[in-house]
Amino acid sequence: MGSILIKNILLDGQPRNVLIEGKRFKSLSAAAGAVAQTVIDGTGKALLPGLYNMHTHAAMTLMRGYGDDTPLERWLEDYIWPYEAQLSSEDFHRGYELANREMAETGTVFFNDMYFSLEEAIDVVAKSGLRAALGLVVLDGHTHSIGPEVLDFLKTWKDPTGGRIRFTLAPHSIYTVSGAKLVRIARAARENGLPIHMHLAETRTEVSNCIRDHGMRPVAYLDSLGLLGPDIILAHCVHVNEEEADILAERQVTIVHCPCSNMKLGSGIFPYEHLIKAGCRITLGTDGASSSNNLDLREAMKFAALLSKVSASPDLLSASAVLEWATVRAAEAFGIDGGVIAEGKLADGILVDLNNVKMQPCYNLVSNFVYSADSSCIAGVLCDGKLIYQR
Amino acid sequence: MGSILIKNILLDGQPRNVLIEGKRFKSLSAAAGAVAQTVIDGTGKALLPGLYNMHTHAAMTLMRGYGDDTPLERWLEDYIWPYEAQLSSEDFHRGYELANREMAETGTVFFNDMYFSLEEAIDVVAKSGLRAALGLVVLDGHTHSIGPEVLDFLKTWKDPTGGRIRFTLAPHSIYTVSGAKLVRIARAARENGLPIHMHLAETRTEVSNCIRDHGMRPVAYLDSLGLLGPDIILAHCVHVNEEEADILAERQVTIVHCPCSNMKLGSGIFPYEHLIKAGCRITLGTDGASSSNNLDLREAMKFAALLSKVSASPDLLSASAVLEWATVRAAEAFGIDGGVIAEGKLADGILVDLNNVKMQPCYNLVSNFVYSADSSCIAGVLCDGKLIYQR
Repeated sequence: MGSILIKNILLDGQPRNVLIEGKRFKSLSAAAGAVAQTVIDGTGKALLPGLYNMHTHAAMTLMRGYGDDTPLERWLEDYIWPYEAQLSSEDFHRGYELANREMAETGTVFFNDMYFSLEEAIDVVAKSGLRAALGLVVLDGHTHSIGPEVLDFLKTWKDPTGGRIRFTLAPHSIYTVSGAKLVRIARAARENGLPIHMHLAETRTEVSNCIRDHGMRPVAYLDSLGLLGPDIILAHCVHVNEEEADILAERQVTIVHCPCSNMKLGSGIFPYEHLIKAGCRITLGTDGASSSNNLDLREAMKFAALLSKVSASPDLLSASAVLEWATVRAAEAFGIDGGVIAEGKLADGILVDLNNVKMQPCYNLVSNFVYSADSSCIAGVLCDGKLIYQR
Repeated sequence: MGSILIKNILLDGQPRNVLIEGKRFKSLSAAAGAVAQTVIDGTGKALLPGLYNMHTHAAMTLMRGYGDDTPLERWLEDYIWPYEAQLSSEDFHRGYELANREMAETGTVFFNDMYFSLEEAIDVVAKSGLRAALGLVVLDGHTHSIGPEVLDFLKTWKDPTGGRIRFTLAPHSIYTVSGAKLVRIARAARENGLPIHMHLAETRTEVSNCIRDHGMRPVAYLDSLGLLGPDIILAHCVHVNEEEADILAERQVTIVHCPCSNMKLGSGIFPYEHLIKAGCRITLGTDGASSSNNLDLREAMKFAALLSKVSASPDLLSASAVLEWATVRAAEAFGIDGGVIAEGKLADGILVDLNNVKMQPCYNLVSNFVYSADSSCIAGVLCDGKLIYQR
């Protein structure tokens, strides 16, 4: 069992010696002389929880900047889908590698992915050291959409990572997957203990088409199909009214807010006030790097907090609240025993360089990290008790 | 006269050898064997113009994160002004040093400052190598507000930087400086050939108080005092209607959009559509690090572009247009012969690390820089023909 001692690192305002044994934090107040296989000097650094990127299409990093500055529907139909149709397994592998590297360098320890070429994704995650929930994507008419045989594969699959990889069933959206198929997917998901991950209520067009086709808004439609529950993760939820917010809260749905993607594609402004007041579980994502245009969840925290302030109220979403969206709320959604720095919890975390000019002065560590920092302030990243990145 | 040869750097999609002699770009297609005092290997890097931060309170970096998550008026009155009242010259010096370092590390070559303790600012800028326009701040009742003696100082002042420093007169705002004094300041500015730099139309409260006190909205009020012209730089201009946008365009005023500050303080959403359609000269700023909470103008570009897309239209403000706001539009406002990479122009620029994971792949350099990059992608910064920062 590996062990790491991080000496003299700032935690909750105090310099501490943090001992990690195996995958977990053993002690947050270890003796300076505690024995460990690896000793890291934490002087001039602070320890914060690692980030959970709750909505990615990781290998789409291959399409970063491709078809920029175009509205969502045209961007998907004219640029993204034709490009994807031509991707080989090798391309996907490169895309996943690039994405995993970017996430590790920007402080992310977990990503909830919805994309293709599962074997490549597994191979890369096994090597990168991150945690991932890999979505088995269903998308009517798409070249890489999965069929029922994938569920058989899961039954015999052995996790090469000792628990860092899990799966979701991921029907793309209500406008690309029929209602009947959504019901079948939900049944399969629940029979196999898999969460469901899909897009919902991203654009005005999606809402008006849903009303046209089903006589209901998207949240009511999914609810009528029986999909809403604590095991569903809905990316975007931009066009959700107060009544729908209450339904999402009551069903204990997990919402993934992707501020940069929604802003860049002009999808709309997330209804912070409704969703926070309704008590919804809100988490954060970047979306694919082809829309957002990176996988930097720390940056997404700043965008979310600032957009909430200008669109709703300056004191609705503090730096520490948005950090919870980016960490522990997401861990809870997946039942991962992490997302906070605490003894006994999974040893994930970010070593923040306090000597970086963007972290100076430091009246408020979390405020500096959310509002001022960038990836140049990230000195190292721990995941599952291992140092997966060091600047 | 110093000279620098940057070999094999990507410029306009081609690898080039860039020769700098003295303060200017001598050749953008020099021979690989061209003689220079310093030779830099540009392989794996691209050259982009250096950024102009058009509204700062640089030494307020001392207050980064102090009084966070509070609305503007309370934040100023309860946190910022009492803190400022206690600052010593030494404190200001430290604040300017921190700010100059942060700006250099994040790609900024020029800042238009409005703050106190001019001598400290000059000393730091002389050493940092940046360009600056330092504002002589007038703020009724503030400890550090300047008096008329400063204009005498300027008459005898000798620039220790060979032209990197200039001055503005900087009345804080219409709510902190009387109309009669604004008129006197404008007269003094025009007699001395100094631009005017002030805040305008930042909050709804400012607008309603202006209507209450002067029977006009802020733009009309400043126009009635004779202040509007090509020599005035107005920070914020958030609460400006279409009619006012036309006045600002007609008077050739320079507007400084500070997206992060406006969002964080909940001031409001910049009226992108009016101001762009009216043909206003728009530039970008971070505002002080106490509100924004950093001085990273590259980040401000992403915020401006994304906020324009979600609040107006996804194709209103492209990555290349926002880069112009952050560079050449600002250089024009100050009559600085730079802001673009061109032979004969002042040799300012950013060496962008194309091997950084955030710059990969590179379908569109400017898109990657605006939407994906962060300061970890900045390998070096040139200003006035000197390498002022190297990662």
